[in-house]
Formats: sequence, structure tokens, C-alpha cells
Amino acid sequence: MSYVAPLKDMLFVINELAGLSAVNALPGCEDATPETVEAVLEENAKFTGEVVAPLNWVGDQAPSYWKDGQVFTTKGFKEAFKMFAEAGWQGVQHPAEFGGQGLPKLVATPCIEMLNSANISFALCPLLSDGAIEALLTAGSDAQKEIYLEKLISGQWTGSMNLTEPQAGSDLAMVRSRAVPEGDGTYKVFGTKIFITYGEHDMTDNIVHLVLARTPDAPEGVKGISLFIVPKFLVNADGSLGSRNDVHCVSIEHKLGIKASPTAVLQFGDNGGAIGTLVGQENRGLEYMFIMMNAARFGVGMQGIGVAERAYQKAVGYAKDRVQSRDLAGSAGPVTIIHHPDVRRMLMSMRAQVEGARALAYVAASLSDTAHHHADDATRKLSQASYEYLVPIVKGWSTEMSLDVTSTGVQVHGGMGFIEETGAAQHYRDAKILTIYEGTTAIQANDLVGRKTARDAGATAKALIAQVRATETELANSASPDLQAIGRQLEVGSVALEDVVDFVVTNFKTDIKAVFAGSVPYLKLAGLVLGGWQMARAALIAEAKLQADDGDASFYKAKIATARFFADHLLSAAHGLRSSIVDGSAGVLAMSEDQF
Amino acid sequence: MSYVAPLKDMLFVINELAGLSAVNALPGCEDATPETVEAVLEENAKFTGEVVAPLNWVGDQAPSYWKDGQVFTTKGFKEAFKMFAEAGWQGVQHPAEFGGQGLPKLVATPCIEMLNSANISFALCPLLSDGAIEALLTAGSDAQKEIYLEKLISGQWTGSMNLTEPQAGSDLAMVRSRAVPEGDGTYKVFGTKIFITYGEHDMTDNIVHLVLARTPDAPEGVKGISLFIVPKFLVNADGSLGSRNDVHCVSIEHKLGIKASPTAVLQFGDNGGAIGTLVGQENRGLEYMFIMMNAARFGVGMQGIGVAERAYQKAVGYAKDRVQSRDLAGSAGPVTIIHHPDVRRMLMSMRAQVEGARALAYVAASLSDTAHHHADDATRKLSQASYEYLVPIVKGWSTEMSLDVTSTGVQVHGGMGFIEETGAAQHYRDAKILTIYEGTTAIQANDLVGRKTARDAGATAKALIAQVRATETELANSASPDLQAIGRQLEVGSVALEDVVDFVVTNFKTDIKAVFAGSVPYLKLAGLVLGGWQMARAALIAEAKLQADDGDASFYKAKIATARFFADHLLSAAHGLRSSIVDGSAGVLAMSEDQF
Repeated sequence: MSYVAPLKDMLFVINELAGLSAVNALPGCEDATPETVEAVLEENAKFTGEVVAPLNWVGDQAPSYWKDGQVFTTKGFKEAFKMFAEAGWQGVQHPAEFGGQGLPKLVATPCIEMLNSANISFALCPLLSDGAIEALLTAGSDAQKEIYLEKLISGQWTGSMNLTEPQAGSDLAMVRSRAVPEGDGTYKVFGTKIFITYGEHDMTDNIVHLVLARTPDAPEGVKGISLFIVPKFLVNADGSLGSRNDVHCVSIEHKLGIKASPTAVLQFGDNGGAIGTLVGQENRGLEYMFIMMNAARFGVGMQGIGVAERAYQKAVGYAKDRVQSRDLAGSAGPVTIIHHPDVRRMLMSMRAQVEGARALAYVAASLSDTAHHHADDATRKLSQASYEYLVPIVKGWSTEMSLDVTSTGVQVHGGMGFIEETGAAQHYRDAKILTIYEGTTAIQANDLVGRKTARDAGATAKALIAQVRATETELANSASPDLQAIGRQLEVGSVALEDVVDFVVTNFKTDIKAVFAGSVPYLKLAGLVLGGWQMARAALIAEAKLQADDGDASFYKAKIATARFFADHLLSAAHGLRSSIVDGSAGVLAMSEDQF
Repeated sequence: MSYVAPLKDMLFVINELAGLSAVNALPGCEDATPETVEAVLEENAKFTGEVVAPLNWVGDQAPSYWKDGQVFTTKGFKEAFKMFAEAGWQGVQHPAEFGGQGLPKLVATPCIEMLNSANISFALCPLLSDGAIEALLTAGSDAQKEIYLEKLISGQWTGSMNLTEPQAGSDLAMVRSRAVPEGDGTYKVFGTKIFITYGEHDMTDNIVHLVLARTPDAPEGVKGISLFIVPKFLVNADGSLGSRNDVHCVSIEHKLGIKASPTAVLQFGDNGGAIGTLVGQENRGLEYMFIMMNAARFGVGMQGIGVAERAYQKAVGYAKDRVQSRDLAGSAGPVTIIHHPDVRRMLMSMRAQVEGARALAYVAASLSDTAHHHADDATRKLSQASYEYLVPIVKGWSTEMSLDVTSTGVQVHGGMGFIEETGAAQHYRDAKILTIYEGTTAIQANDLVGRKTARDAGATAKALIAQVRATETELANSASPDLQAIGRQLEVGSVALEDVVDFVVTNFKTDIKAVFAGSVPYLKLAGLVLGGWQMARAALIAEAKLQADDGDASFYKAKIATARFFADHLLSAAHGLRSSIVDGSAGVLAMSEDQF
């Protein structure tokens, strides 16, 4: 059940597809030299592989548990988190000003992937802290930054995001928690929050809860929600811990997966009111929360890639070990099952999906770096638009893909896969939350359709498609039959995607239900085409390297084979998805409620 | 968490698609009048819904457990099984000669579906008994039939199938269990069998183990395997129980799902040898086992349909109840989530897959009845060939479909789906074994490619496709735009399937690895096209009923909408699958083992 970080592929994607040298040339990214990045990744691979990965199965078998208002995390988690914090891993992408390493998102992203491959349950805690840090950096007052940021970035404290209430899940307009101003700059917060990841735990001395609540005169709906910091322990002026705040964990959930990660029900204000301070301005809470959520959504996409990579490695290991049946081409005795074509197909499907999603996510991370750091205003804006278009795809597609990959992982193990001790089933169970939290796939797809496609009349989507087209031309001009074949499938894909973008833009105002009936298929189509595009780019680079006899020929040949598989077995679904979207709304919407 | 059998759809499929009146006209099927069948189904719906379904969640929470060699099933199972047996449900499809009801497979099939919707873990026990009954009917001696059949058919005893050993899973050539003749007509059996479903339990007084083992001089490989009856308790000449046989349960597995169903490790002969009798002739065990397996494979396909139907009902219930977000078309307040297009899409996807798979399975059952009972030899042969072609599809496609449907079921529940108490996750966990046991999907696909397609040069497949073509013509001639749209997608599908059948037949001898690299996609394509065909037939019938103002208009309109959804959202994948199969072997097979 070990995990070995796929550093070779990660570095290939970082350098060749996501353009590390260009990121390194951006103002403020001078430290991210190829040598430094490689060293950081190697160190992270070591830590996640040796310290965090062995705790994954342990946490599934002995989950965190609740007793008398306290949550006790799985044995070993506290010590591992201390090591994580002390090594500075929480701060990789955060500003040096507050103790972080100030490295680009392109460098933090593979680190997040590795941590999630090692242990999703463990990785969730830093992921939530990242969200809190991001929100405070954007909207926190200087005083709030002073008090909280260094402690969060150093991993001395952790953060939590308190959005959901029993009646308010995807629909945050229904948040009812209240925050009453005390007149001294503080508020008293009251309410129940559910599904709060690491809302209570014993790994650090304090937890910084970021909480959505309504002030007394707030308007109804999403425009009346404010964001508050409610620390578990109040913080004295000198930064030391003060008294226990009135926020308490009344239970944690019994879940299908990520069992070591405590999912808390938090009661705020049952004993007079939890003391909080406002972040930014009143009624702008949702806006700030969306800043956290965009980062968190990207992070959950990385969770999908991480768990899928782990499941892939496990399946490959089993397929190379398990002996069963003779080779189809004829062999004296039985062979390892990796010799059987369908096992091969399953492994290639897992591999291709992981590599495609990884490539797309890292390219998105690089766009985010350009958007933040580029000297040219227009370039920043264009990059930001592309990044924002990709966020729901990285989140939605990579997590949907992880369901397929972890399911196939169990299948490769045959009957043993169904036995919990084997460990393959844990990945299948763990992955299932990823298409749900931080916005379900449907919520991601709504974002993709509304804010990311219809709002700019498809301009960002079309600009990306134009880049896909350029790659198609390169593929068509290649002498390699594999690359030509990839080019043909990519063209079918990009034509389908363009049709769908037109369909969305054209019908958004006139037939919105028909558009949203195809929103998730659109998200999947976009993921396949853009992920397939990255695989095609990778194949072009690999072919050039092979022609130039430059580097590891076996790696490059495998990359071409994987890209070819992606094109023929995954991207080939594009035409059918187009059909579902453009022709398919009738079937979705025809029935009345009572016909179900 | 209740289950209400979808009797309306079942009866529609039985009568209109599977042709109950023609089955009823077959010699030996005279009892299966429409009225009797409806009464049987109503009674079964009542029993499964009221008695068995409530035990489903109970069994997940308090699984069967092992103690000192004994297995104690979930509280309530023993009593429910007694009721099941006493009501005669084990005997629905078995000969009246041995106490069964002698009804056609077309009638037994919906009963099996209902039992599995109610509780897969419970249903497994009768499923294994069915297999044992089938094997003894085919190959048992008169004495064996006399001793065992009535007791199995009455549910007084149960059966188990002992194939798998640690080194012999999909590859039964590697079976090592030994059977040594004692000279008195009995054998002493030695060996370890794993993954034995209901290999030990406390629901009946005796268990009839059917065991694969090798006699001392048997040839190697699959041609040296014999089948033995090894009862848990030996049976005296008068039918009463004798001494305890030397077969013992040393443990049961800790599994991802179907937790109430004990999965036993059985030791045969640790204390001198388990006494068994040979079934049929030596070295023909695998042949007999395949008789059981064909029935069992069909049964597992029904498990997929059963669990998917249950997950669908649960998701619909939640979607009609959970209030969240406003209607896209504009509403004053939040609405139940069934109003949201993507929830609608998910529910339709679940519904369409369940209905399509049900229709195909029931049609297959009807073909089996014709194959057994028709007066005309040629008709019997043709029906048998079609049925055998469909068995791996019913097993493989219906179970793969159940993974998708139960996963979507969790997704419809959002965050609540991930909480075990909600119950949606149990279906997701339970379904995962269905694509593995009784032959993985790859094993089904190998069967489809080799024995069912290449062997007759695609003749059976082409005959079915010709029938699909006839349906396409009817659809094209319809005045309904929905039916015309269905026809267009069906045509794309049947063309793709025909191409693939040609590809399989052409390349089977020359490039077998390329053919098997596409075997599972072929199975899925065949499922989609043939399931889509049944939905199209259903839509034609529904349209005719509507035109004639005959019957429940709401039901028929829903059927057309569901068929339309199937065509646009599921069948539309056909073209891409064809691509994966015909173009895709290069990507599957290019990499060497060390490149993984």
C-alpha cells in the first residue's frame, strides 16, 4: 500500500506543458528555478511517501472519533501534522511576508497532489487552512492578518470553512446563522453548522473558524451574508491563547470514506454567543468565501488526481504480481494478469485519465501564476479568464474521473478488491465525496455554463479552442501515425466542444433549462477535449524528444502510447456528449414530477 | 428506505416486450396465464417489500459474523428465509416433479429482481441454491436428485458453489482441491475454497456444497476437474441428517458491501477427508459448473438491475423531498431539487438504464423459455443461441450499469449521500461486487467475443441486428418527432455494433489481442444497442397505445420520454465505443510491462 510520487511525469508536465521557465521569469517568481522546484518536489515526495502515506489505511480502520465534545484524530496524525508544519509545507504557496515560501501555484500544486495521494483524510486539514489563509489575505484587516496569518501559514493553527447548515447546502441563500454586533467591534455568533471538515480536532492548539452568518438588518438571500472569524480559543493581544470560545462540536459524521477526517457538527453560541470579528465588509461574505472556494475547488480537483494516481499505482502493483490464466498469444503456464488485454485496457484507462487531468490542472496552475504576476495587464486578464474557466473543469472533471479510476482499481483486483483488507476499496470509498463537497459537479457545471461561458459569450472558451486547433494542425503535419490518429480524435472533440459552446451561448437567455440539462455533459466534454489537448501536446513534445534522441526514450514512448489511448478510448466520447447536450434536453425535461 | 416493486413497468415489459402470451402458449407453460403471472408478481412484491427489504440496512449495520466455526446471520434473516421457503419462492422456476412451481423463467426473473431490490445479501442465498438445483437437474444421478432436489427446491436446505481457491479465481485450470475415491462410490475431498457465498450459515439445517476438485489421475488443466456434492451434514438413506461432514468454515471476509451475506473460507478434509459423491462423470465438472454459471450469471445481472432500481427509488424520494435553491425558470422561494435540470438528468439516467436493462433481461428470459419449450427444433436452437449471446450482456452490462446508477444515486443525495445513515452509500458499496463475481466483466466479454461471436462467425449477433434494423424502419415511419429521434440514434448504434461484430470476426484468428483489447467496450456497446432497441420497441408500443387512447397515458408518455433519454444520452455513446474497439488496440497494447 505504499505510494511513490510520479516525479518524472510531474516534472515533465511542469517543465514541458505548464512552462515552468516562463513562470520562473515572472516578477516575484524568481526563486522557482527548475533546480529548486525539483528539490522541493523530491523532498515533498519523501515526506508524503514515508510519513503520510502509511497513515492512510490506519485512518480508515481507526477513524477519528468524538468524545464529550472533543475529537481525537487517528493515532499518528498529530505527529505527522507537526512534521508537516515544521517542514514548512503549509506555506509553500503563501507569502514570505507571513512566513510562507512564496512559491508559485505551479509548485504548490504537485505538492498538494502528493499529499492527497498519500492520504486524502490528512490532506484535508491543510486544504482548509489554505482556504482560510486565502480569504484573510484578500479581505482580512491588518490586525486580523497580524493575529492569524503567521500561525495558519506555519501550521501552528488550522482553519475551517463554515458554510453549510441543515437547510443550506448548495443554496447558501438559506444560511440562517446570526451575528449580533456587540458595539465593541466584535459580534456574537449563533447557529448550527454541519459538514465542517476538521471543525474540531486535537492536532493544533487552536482552530480558526471562518463562518458565514447574517447580521440583524441584513437583506435576505445571498446579499445579506457576512463572513466572520470565530476562533476556537480567543486570542490575546500578545498572540497567546485566551479563553475558550462558545463554539462546540456536538458530533461527527459516520461516513462512507475519508473516515480519518472529522466532519463536525458545530454549535455556535449555545452558551451566550461565540465571539467573532467581521472579515471585510458586512454582506460581502459570499464574495470572500468564493475566493476561498475557487482555491479550494482547485484543491479538490487535485484530490481527485491524487487518489486516482494512488489507485493506479496499487492496481499496477497487483497486476504485475497476480498470476492467473495463460497469455492469449499462447504461453506454457499462467502469467501475471498485466499480460491480459483487458487488464491492460483498464490500467491504460486509469493512467491516461490521471495523466490528462494532471496536465490540465498544472497548466491551469501556471495560468493562475501568470494572472497574478505577469507585468502586462492584458496578459494577466486573459490568463485569469482562462484559469477561471478551467477551475470548475479541474474540480468537476478530475473528481468524476477519480470515481471511474478508483472503481476500475477495485475491478483490476478482482474478488480481492472487494475485501477491505486489500485497500483498493478505501480509495473507491474515499473518492466518492470529491464530486460532492466544495460544490457538486452540477454546481461546477452551473458555474462553467453561467459565469464562465455565457457571461463572455463564449470568448474564453473559443480562445482555448483556437489553441486546440493549432495543436491539431501540428499533429496533422506529423509523420507519426500515432500523432495523426490523436489529431483526428482531437479534431472531432474540438468541433464538438465548439458546437456546444455555441449552443450554450445561443440558448442561455431563451431556453435556460435546456442549457442546464446539458451542463454536466458540457463540463465532461470540456474536460475530455482540454485534457486530451494536453495529452496531444505531450505526445508532440515526446515525439520531438525521440526524434532528437534527447532523454528517456522509454518515458516518451509511454507518453505517446498513453496519449493515443486517451484519444481513442476517452476523447472518442466527445461526439456522443455533444449529442446529449444539443439534442438531449427533450428527454431530460419531458416528464412531470408525478411521473417519477 | 422502503422498496415498492415497479409492477407496472414489469408487467408492461413481460406482456408487451417479452411476449408473455407467446410463452404461455408454449408446451409446459400453460399455467403462466397473464392473470396468474400478475398474481404471482403481486404476492412477491408484497413479500419482498414487507419482509425482506426492511432487513437490508439492518444487515449492513449488523453483518453476519463468524464464531468458533459457525456463522450467525443477521438477526431476522433466518425467519425471513423460512417464510421465503414456506411460500414456495425458491421453487418458482423449478420442476413441479420436485416440488417446484414449474413456471417459466420469464416469471421467475421479475421475482429475482424484486428479491434483489429488497436485499442483495439475502437474495444471494436462493441464487446459489438455484445454481445447485440447476446443476443437479442436469448432471445429477437419480439417487442424488432424490436426496437433494426436493429439499433444495423447498428451501429446507440451501446450496453453495465451491469453485475459487486462493490461486484459482478466473482461471479454474488452477484448481488444486483433491478428491480420492474410497471404492464405495464415495470420495474423500481435500482442499481450501475461498469466496464461498453462504458457504456457512444458520438459516437451514444443511448446506449442499457443490465442489470442484481433481481425482488422482485427472489430466492437468480444465479437463481434469470433476464436480462433487459435499453436504455439510451427511444424509441418511431415509433423508434424515447423519453425521457432520469434514468441511469447516475457518473465517468469513470483511467486505466493502453485501455484508450480511457471509463469504466463507471453507476447509475440506482437515480431519480425514470430507465425504462427497461425484456428480455426472469424472473430468466433466467444469462443463456442469458452466450450466450453473449461466443461470447464476443471468441472476447476477438481475442483481444489478435490482440494486439499481432500489437506488433509483431512493434518489427519486430524496429529490422530491429535499428543498434547495430556486427554480431556474424563476420561483418565489426554493423548490424541491427534482425541479433542477441536472437532478432531473441524473434521475432520468438512472431510470433509463434500469428500464433498458430490465427490458433486455426479460426478453432474454423469454428466449430461454422458448429455447426450452418450443415445439419446433429450429426455433428452439435459434432462441437458445440468442439467449446465450445475451447472457454475458445481461450479466456484464446490467452490473456495470448498476455501478453508474448507484453512484449517481449517492450524488443525487449530495452531502447526505456520503453519510452512511442515509443508506444511499450501501447500494453503492453492495453493487461493487456484481461486476466481479460469477465472472468479471472481462470474463463475460471474453465469452461474448469467443464463444458467442467468433464461433458462429457473428451469425447470432447479425440476426439480432437485423431485428434492430426492422425496428429502425418502424421508427423512421413514425409521425412522432421523439420516435424519429430515437430511430436516428438507434441506427448509429446498430451500424456501430455491426462494424464491431465484423471487426471481431475478421480479426479473431489473426490478431486476437487486438480483439480482446476491445472486448469490454464491445460488451458495453452491445448492451447499449440492444437495451436501446428494447426501449425503442417500448416507445413504439407506447405511441400506438396513446394513439389508440388505450390505457394509462401518463405511463406511456413517461416511457417515450425515457426511451428518448436513453437514445440521446446513453445510446449516443455507441459511435465512440466503436472507435475505441476498431481503432483503439494500439493504445491498449503499446506499452511494455516495465513502462507501467
